[in-house]
Amino acid sequence: MIAGNYWFSAEGHAAPPRPRRIQTVQEQEAVSVFSSLLDAYEARCVLHVSQVGPYAEGAAFAGGQYMPADQAMVPLFDLGFLRSDLTYDVPAVWDGRFFRLDDHLARLERSCAKLRLKPPMSTPQIREMLIELVRRTGLRDAYVDVIVTRGRAAKGQRDARLAESAIYAFVVPYIWILPLEVHEVGGSAVVTRDVRRTPPGAMDPTIKNLQWGDLTRGFFEAFDRNASLPLLPDGDGNITEGCYNIFTVHGGVLRTPARGVLEGVTRLTAMEIARAEGWEVRMEDVPVGSLYDADEIFLSSTAGGIMPITTLDGEPVGGGQVGPVTRRIWERYWTLHTDPRLSFAVDYD
Amino acid sequence: MIAGNYWFSAEGHAAPPRPRRIQTVQEQEAVSVFSSLLDAYEARCVLHVSQVGPYAEGAAFAGGQYMPADQAMVPLFDLGFLRSDLTYDVPAVWDGRFFRLDDHLARLERSCAKLRLKPPMSTPQIREMLIELVRRTGLRDAYVDVIVTRGRAAKGQRDARLAESAIYAFVVPYIWILPLEVHEVGGSAVVTRDVRRTPPGAMDPTIKNLQWGDLTRGFFEAFDRNASLPLLPDGDGNITEGCYNIFTVHGGVLRTPARGVLEGVTRLTAMEIARAEGWEVRMEDVPVGSLYDADEIFLSSTAGGIMPITTLDGEPVGGGQVGPVTRRIWERYWTLHTDPRLSFAVDYD
Repeated sequence: MIAGNYWFSAEGHAAPPRPRRIQTVQEQEAVSVFSSLLDAYEARCVLHVSQVGPYAEGAAFAGGQYMPADQAMVPLFDLGFLRSDLTYDVPAVWDGRFFRLDDHLARLERSCAKLRLKPPMSTPQIREMLIELVRRTGLRDAYVDVIVTRGRAAKGQRDARLAESAIYAFVVPYIWILPLEVHEVGGSAVVTRDVRRTPPGAMDPTIKNLQWGDLTRGFFEAFDRNASLPLLPDGDGNITEGCYNIFTVHGGVLRTPARGVLEGVTRLTAMEIARAEGWEVRMEDVPVGSLYDADEIFLSSTAGGIMPITTLDGEPVGGGQVGPVTRRIWERYWTLHTDPRLSFAVDYD
Repeated sequence: MIAGNYWFSAEGHAAPPRPRRIQTVQEQEAVSVFSSLLDAYEARCVLHVSQVGPYAEGAAFAGGQYMPADQAMVPLFDLGFLRSDLTYDVPAVWDGRFFRLDDHLARLERSCAKLRLKPPMSTPQIREMLIELVRRTGLRDAYVDVIVTRGRAAKGQRDARLAESAIYAFVVPYIWILPLEVHEVGGSAVVTRDVRRTPPGAMDPTIKNLQWGDLTRGFFEAFDRNASLPLLPDGDGNITEGCYNIFTVHGGVLRTPARGVLEGVTRLTAMEIARAEGWEVRMEDVPVGSLYDADEIFLSSTAGGIMPITTLDGEPVGGGQVGPVTRRIWERYWTLHTDPRLSFAVDYD
């Protein structure tokens, strides 16, 4: 898929190949880092596709048992289904290494505590179970999802306090929020007009949750307006998030919403990278209006990494190209995935 | 369970028997109607308990098949679970008759349309399936739940437009929101301080949904404050709903919130009854403050009927007894369940 001067060829995709605009040595280096990272990723994917066995397409854990992902089921009466009474987290594996797994598990613990959910497994047990799932799939790059639900209500009862919590998890090939070939040119987003983000006073967004009604509505609006991704306002003039955190770049200053959003692990990593680069990072209210004069906008999420947004409401962001700040953070973000301070190798046997 | 002068004896329940305060002929008649309705209900329940067979405890429909309720499962990858991307409806059966089933099915159709969900079955097919479920259980009084989900996303895809909708349903013995014995004395509620209702701009509450994060949070707050039920404000000084609609009574005027709430079938029935009784019914904003000088407060829901609230934030509502308006609507509501204009008999063979 990756060829010549392109981060990705456009083969099989809607956008035709574009001549590369390479101006500076720095940019050339960045392209080269991006290219080599993605080349290696694609090579691993190709290797994985040739694997067979019951777990080749993914593994799951449900009802206390390991199974091929396709077979995983949730009891209809689990309040995780009947009331979306649950929390979840999504760590990931990149190049055979779990990235910041303990940060994800610590957040899962905090989410459970806020919901008064007592998971049926301890955090070390959950950690082992997730590693075992990855091991079974043999996936070198994986999307890992762990869900703690309220469980089944006691028979004939509605009281959530009487339910016994349940846990589910699955590991599947990486599912990109923004197709990888779009990472080179940047994605398109809209600030939603028809939907606002659920406010923290209704559902605390620091509890990672699957009550995606507002986000789903946002995605439909984005599609209707010929864009890929929605950015939801808070109803008070500030931007919040999609199913990812949002950053704006104005000069050497990065801004990301302080409240009304998930405390993202990728957001944290992006902030750490930016500060190490000497850029100022502000966690504060981000007025919707400030998106329209930003030099750069990018999104962050474990399931998408660093996602440049180069089109907003149909108009170019900054110069309409992926900017240098986004590019640098993208590159550092993926490079950090092999840093032993933040990741560890899965033992695949 | 029902004995002597009590609507219910308190046997097996926390509250000790209280001397009945019977003052007027009208009140005596109301007690008698309540008592005879509930006597008959309890007698049917006792009869049902003696039934055996795989469906005696409930029946479900999942994956296109009928099965005992306990066996019903949802694929982990159904977006109904992974994003709570679904809608549902709850009709009920009382004394062997489906009540306003077509109103529930019409609302389900509207909810699906608003979510751009295309159910895998037509409305007449869903109707037949629900009747068949009731038939299999033999239940004369049943809670009926039908859920239409987005279904499984296409493999490796996040786009909800590519998913194929799924349908689930179950029929179980009636699950009362407020225990029946509390209907005589009235329940306790709090106006939540820690949580507001999700606003319509985030999730449209006229789409009956299972994103209960705010409601679950409300129930925990109610329990913490020694009450049974939460009433959620809208964040702008008005009351909205719990998992039920809310009515206040001031003199001969009933009020129920116009917006930010489910368009309840029981709410509609209560309004029709009230108007037929000559009372004024206003659908309008209901300020939270107006709850504290109400003569009566009651809630309405298919899974709870008409639920008198006699204690609010620990203080008595009006005289602290179930008031005459609530009592009359309660009685008419259940009596209407045998009216052939609003209900039809299930053919149990």
